[in-house]
Amino acid sequence: MRRVVRFKPSRKRAEEIEVAVVGLGKIGVETASLIWRRDGLRLVGLVDTSPALLGRDLAELAGLERPTGVRVVSSIDLLDRTPEVAVLTTTSSFESIHPTLRRLVSMGINVVSSSEEMIYPWLSSPELAEDIDRLCREMGVVAYGTGVNPGFVMDRLPAFLAGACQEIRSVEVIRVVDASTRRRALQAKIGSGLTVEEFEALAASGRIGHVGLVESAAYLADRLGLDVVEIEEELKPVVSDRRVRTEFFDVPPGKVIGIRQTAVGRDGSGEEVVKLRLEMFLDAESPRDEIRIRGVPDLDVEIKGGTPGDQATAAILVNAIPLVMSMEPGLRA
Amino acid sequence: MRRVVRFKPSRKRAEEIEVAVVGLGKIGVETASLIWRRDGLRLVGLVDTSPALLGRDLAELAGLERPTGVRVVSSIDLLDRTPEVAVLTTTSSFESIHPTLRRLVSMGINVVSSSEEMIYPWLSSPELAEDIDRLCREMGVVAYGTGVNPGFVMDRLPAFLAGACQEIRSVEVIRVVDASTRRRALQAKIGSGLTVEEFEALAASGRIGHVGLVESAAYLADRLGLDVVEIEEELKPVVSDRRVRTEFFDVPPGKVIGIRQTAVGRDGSGEEVVKLRLEMFLDAESPRDEIRIRGVPDLDVEIKGGTPGDQATAAILVNAIPLVMSMEPGLRA
Repeated sequence: MRRVVRFKPSRKRAEEIEVAVVGLGKIGVETASLIWRRDGLRLVGLVDTSPALLGRDLAELAGLERPTGVRVVSSIDLLDRTPEVAVLTTTSSFESIHPTLRRLVSMGINVVSSSEEMIYPWLSSPELAEDIDRLCREMGVVAYGTGVNPGFVMDRLPAFLAGACQEIRSVEVIRVVDASTRRRALQAKIGSGLTVEEFEALAASGRIGHVGLVESAAYLADRLGLDVVEIEEELKPVVSDRRVRTEFFDVPPGKVIGIRQTAVGRDGSGEEVVKLRLEMFLDAESPRDEIRIRGVPDLDVEIKGGTPGDQATAAILVNAIPLVMSMEPGLRA
Repeated sequence: MRRVVRFKPSRKRAEEIEVAVVGLGKIGVETASLIWRRDGLRLVGLVDTSPALLGRDLAELAGLERPTGVRVVSSIDLLDRTPEVAVLTTTSSFESIHPTLRRLVSMGINVVSSSEEMIYPWLSSPELAEDIDRLCREMGVVAYGTGVNPGFVMDRLPAFLAGACQEIRSVEVIRVVDASTRRRALQAKIGSGLTVEEFEALAASGRIGHVGLVESAAYLADRLGLDVVEIEEELKPVVSDRRVRTEFFDVPPGKVIGIRQTAVGRDGSGEEVVKLRLEMFLDAESPRDEIRIRGVPDLDVEIKGGTPGDQATAAILVNAIPLVMSMEPGLRA
């Protein structure tokens, strides 16, 4: 039996959404380029405080062939048009983005941010989170944190999958990233080439490792109604037993080639109900994302090869733009 | 490095949502039991037109130990309280549920339905879909179709995953279900024990096979903005080359043990941009759900063993109840 149905999408194309990008590091530039070429979005501004970037056209920053006419200004106040949405791609810490976020929201601008802590800012900065939430409601806008991790692999995707479960006993996510194929900044961020002592010192002062793992665990606990009372985070170096070389590093045996970081959420009786494990190291075999939900029913999901961090980050930020326009005002996890 | 964070969820528990279930077949009864025991929901009514069910307590229908006090009535008008949400679990066809759906919406009741065509009713019944959409907006309520398939595996989950992609060239989903372990009704629905001729005759008159595959394809095309102009559906029998026995069927070689059904969405140049393949047959090896997105980046996801249909259906319906309460009024795909 065979039949053919003619198809015409039901939805009307929405008006173009006007968007600015605030913070023009690697992620900001890639996001701005994607907005530039995406139907339904209009790039109306680029903002960065760095004097070196002032006045530059997006084309220069992103290596596009033709000038876009959109140039970097030093403050959101200097844009010709107030955008409907700002993509905020500056730093990881919610505390450090708070003043900028506050300014954007008070201008009536919706915000999508790649700030890692903003996936669940109530954990690191409950008072500042409440402040932004209140201001968002007052101004009728949304502030929303997202990205690949946090924002997708270890939190929103498992929560989405758990929508197929009647009951949930525990959620485990394992993400293994082969850092050998990634850019220098990432290889450095995971401690490549350090001694174990150097690694531990940087780890103790929070200057190494992945930001946002505890936020992902808190997000899952909250969203799935899991009875978590504490979250324990642990960061350990992965030490090589042989020489490992990449384009940027040449690591002898006995030195660090990456991280193994865990966040475990326990209930009142000590049961592990959320277990997140992130491994990022040079020459990691079988990179993948694995999600294991135990409940009714069990679900075992694998993203083969893992979700490619760099490409997916800009995608998730840009795809969130129409989404925030339809959410209820507030700071949204 | 190790640290422990105390955790307290940010969200306040919402008021209980009052829910009725309309249609007390297998899915309706399982859904009602889940609502009965789920925090945050209150089961306020059971509706079915079958005289045999009239006056029965949910406990009798679902095999619960204690009576619930919630009994079947023959019409939504006979409930003591008008529910905020009705879960409508009667038939697959949007045309056939349209009168009931219209009645519920006109009473100001939000609707979550397992009707397969309702995942994308603009395909089978564009006028009736427009009618319901208009009425929903007028009454400020939502009508929403969902389930495992359609509703999750072959449409909403791939669309969610595609949120991590900058560009999408094609989406392919393969679902393989081992029907041997499923209930009799499912084994019959896929044609177990029929001759090929009997199968083809039933297929031609639409009385066999999976309902909703073209709707899943249309949903994906619409939601992902893929340029689909036609969807071709094909339904073929899987014929056994040996004797296959289950609890309910004993099928000799040469007879039907299940279905292989495809829906392919093509763009104007004939390119296959959506490819859905559903295989459900007795003794199927390696049951699984596979999602393959080709774009920037590619994503390859597998649900190992597949999403368990029966348990997940009730879960998805019930989990959609708080969701529809936060959606904008209308008929929502």
